[in-house]
Amino acid sequence: MTAVLDVPSGDAARVETPPVGDPRLARLSLNQRTTAQWSLREALDGARAAGLSSIGLWREPVAEVGLETAAQWVADSGLRVSSLCRGGFFTAEEPDAREAADADNRAAIDECVALGTDVLVLVPGGLPGGSKDLAGARERAAEAIGRLAPYAGERGVRLGIEPMHPIFAADRGVVSSLRQALDIAEQHPASQVGVVVDTYHLWWEPDVEQQIARAGERIVAYQVCDWITPVPADNLLGRGMMGDGHVDFPAFTRAVAATGYAGDVEVEIFNADVWAAAGEDVVATMARRYAELVEPYL
Amino acid sequence: MTAVLDVPSGDAARVETPPVGDPRLARLSLNQRTTAQWSLREALDGARAAGLSSIGLWREPVAEVGLETAAQWVADSGLRVSSLCRGGFFTAEEPDAREAADADNRAAIDECVALGTDVLVLVPGGLPGGSKDLAGARERAAEAIGRLAPYAGERGVRLGIEPMHPIFAADRGVVSSLRQALDIAEQHPASQVGVVVDTYHLWWEPDVEQQIARAGERIVAYQVCDWITPVPADNLLGRGMMGDGHVDFPAFTRAVAATGYAGDVEVEIFNADVWAAAGEDVVATMARRYAELVEPYL
Repeated sequence: MTAVLDVPSGDAARVETPPVGDPRLARLSLNQRTTAQWSLREALDGARAAGLSSIGLWREPVAEVGLETAAQWVADSGLRVSSLCRGGFFTAEEPDAREAADADNRAAIDECVALGTDVLVLVPGGLPGGSKDLAGARERAAEAIGRLAPYAGERGVRLGIEPMHPIFAADRGVVSSLRQALDIAEQHPASQVGVVVDTYHLWWEPDVEQQIARAGERIVAYQVCDWITPVPADNLLGRGMMGDGHVDFPAFTRAVAATGYAGDVEVEIFNADVWAAAGEDVVATMARRYAELVEPYL
Repeated sequence: MTAVLDVPSGDAARVETPPVGDPRLARLSLNQRTTAQWSLREALDGARAAGLSSIGLWREPVAEVGLETAAQWVADSGLRVSSLCRGGFFTAEEPDAREAADADNRAAIDECVALGTDVLVLVPGGLPGGSKDLAGARERAAEAIGRLAPYAGERGVRLGIEPMHPIFAADRGVVSSLRQALDIAEQHPASQVGVVVDTYHLWWEPDVEQQIARAGERIVAYQVCDWITPVPADNLLGRGMMGDGHVDFPAFTRAVAATGYAGDVEVEIFNADVWAAAGEDVVATMARRYAELVEPYL
């Protein structure tokens, strides 16, 4: 008998792969960037073949096949869309660029409606080139969220502010902690603005369990992947398969579950080794690790 | 006339190098790791030749020449010792290892006394190998500080808890924000336990200016260097010369000055390109950047 191996670690699997129809898979979602080696079509087919019930989509691969086609494929697949990634990038200083970002975010909200998801993940954006005004960039992000919130709410879409690990504060996401994301979200109705809780971005936050409790019904998405060391040269790709790094998934998941969060759990991993593996093996590994480290604590 | 060039950027210097005796140099300290290409002897001579009045020392190069010799050299140099780096590494789980860490930290406190500095910089340490219990590691660090504080206080040394950028939470420093460092420090008299405020580690913290105000007299050291992108493959070396990255030094420095902080300002840069330059050029560049971006706001 050949041992089943996890990817990308190459370790022997510690648990059986949950079979199609296993109730433990009912809330597991494949964020499609986890299998960047797959097209949208392959990701939908792969998620269904593995018995998942939902998928997290990205705008670019959706645009590639066209929104209408993508929406049809999703409907045919029977999968829920747990979220659409990503709106945001709100930190430009020029009025024209800010208006363009607003328009693009309204388009993203419309795409959510077409694809049948009620969650748009917002990546706030980094410092504009040459700027050192972090406070100003944060203010502009908060203002843009305020401008978009009613538009989203009218369409039944909730904006999910994604606080990002401080390693990205300069170049990608100026909202750096769950506390800070909630300070912004709480200025708006929970039906319009919530937060994305991602283990990779937030595991270090000193009072993260209290902030998760504070978030309560504002948690619009729970994303999981691990913080691995050493951080690779391209630090965008420093995400690991759950269990390969330093995150305490049971504790984190219990805190999220205690809020009453009943949504899907997205696995979102950017990692060159994950992308070099066969998509089927990635999905099978993530289902095993989820069954071991996350699902029992939901 | 040959243009004076900054290192490691190679940009033309924007301001004149402050000459020896310039009052603007009165609080500028060379942390000796900024000139890792220099021995202790060379660093003392180099700092004095540049007209600085203080130096931040590291235990390893002090031990290399012997504590007594180092103390004599320091006394002869006329330089103040702004701090000694570093105590800490408190997160081991085994009682033996914890006792060894306590003993090593008491030795470091004694070395502070011998070298004539009243500040021991504490690097808390990371997760023990294989552990995912970040909360536990943080608790052990706080407990160790509590055990050491009276010993330090009796010897006139203040422990400086150094909150470290969350990129280091797994492998180096489990205290991840100034807010968290203050939560620990405030359990002890300010004469025993304070905090190290380092622009590189803290520039991203959403309410850092409020936390600096809260710190008040607990700021035992102000260290400056820049956050540069892209973060290099060895992320320990991602520190930049002030002005080469994303940190708003005037705003940060004003906040520190508003607390009444009257101590030295240490330049501490770990950067392979800085270390590849001539030590004299590093010290001259740091003096210029300090005169431009930091000193006017003190």
